[in-house]
Amino acid sequence: MESTFTFRAVGVVESPYGSTEEIPKGVGATHTAEGTLVIFPEFAEGLQDIEGFSHLYVLWVFHRVGDWSLLAHPPSDDRPHGVFATRSPRRPNPIGLTVVELLARHGHRLHVRGVDMLDGTPILDLKPYLSSVPAEALRRGWLAEAEARAAQGQEKPAQGRGDRL
Amino acid sequence: MESTFTFRAVGVVESPYGSTEEIPKGVGATHTAEGTLVIFPEFAEGLQDIEGFSHLYVLWVFHRVGDWSLLAHPPSDDRPHGVFATRSPRRPNPIGLTVVELLARHGHRLHVRGVDMLDGTPILDLKPYLSSVPAEALRRGWLAEAEARAAQGQEKPAQGRGDRL
Repeated sequence: MESTFTFRAVGVVESPYGSTEEIPKGVGATHTAEGTLVIFPEFAEGLQDIEGFSHLYVLWVFHRVGDWSLLAHPPSDDRPHGVFATRSPRRPNPIGLTVVELLARHGHRLHVRGVDMLDGTPILDLKPYLSSVPAEALRRGWLAEAEARAAQGQEKPAQGRGDRL
Repeated sequence: MESTFTFRAVGVVESPYGSTEEIPKGVGATHTAEGTLVIFPEFAEGLQDIEGFSHLYVLWVFHRVGDWSLLAHPPSDDRPHGVFATRSPRRPNPIGLTVVELLARHGHRLHVRGVDMLDGTPILDLKPYLSSVPAEALRRGWLAEAEARAAQGQEKPAQGRGDRL
């Protein structure tokens, strides 16, 4: 099997966040910041009809992350977890995934709500968000446990160490 | 800005689908097939605590797709749409995204429901599925229109041309 794959940026994120410390993290963090997904003009035709969708998946690159680890120490918990059970940026393949709400399209610029990426983040792909897993069907493992502890007043403060979740 | 990024497979999908024609596509297609996400042993430590999550995002490679196009012709509609408004495999970066239900973990093998990938598909990343956009908040653009037409008996048959959605 071919084991490496090379991808290119199809656009870039304009975000209010210039450093990872500014991005809300940890238990209860919400992402309501607005920003713009700027798709490079040579890919703009690929946006046709995208304005009909309220939400999009954005696949992007943690472009400022250099190293990675199989265990992550998320700011929302005081215990380490396997990196695939977290949204840590320090992953074997540093690909980020964010669901954003599409507020408006202006040509090859998509104005969106819900950015949690740094300004200048390379975009790999956009996909329409089509359906959801019902909330009552979800189990959320260690994160639910950490949230329950936080609700009991034992919250661990977010440490701004660049991990997410 | 760096404009290309190289990633590696961290595992491989064992799926009942040996060819794209076997994968349900088009209006009303559902994905309930079971399969296994086999994470390579050198990345297995990254799975710690993943069994607490009911659903996972799988990022993977459309490894049999060679070309791409900015306009896609999904089997669920008779009109072309921008590739970023579809889940066509023929995308500038051929990365697939699937939500699966985690049924069981056996060491570095995750038994899951909801595979829509071919057998042998390279896996780039796994992430926990944490929250959903409420169904009532979703708009689904051309796909909702195509579904409404199909419900009126004007369904266009899926053509098995390898596009998805």
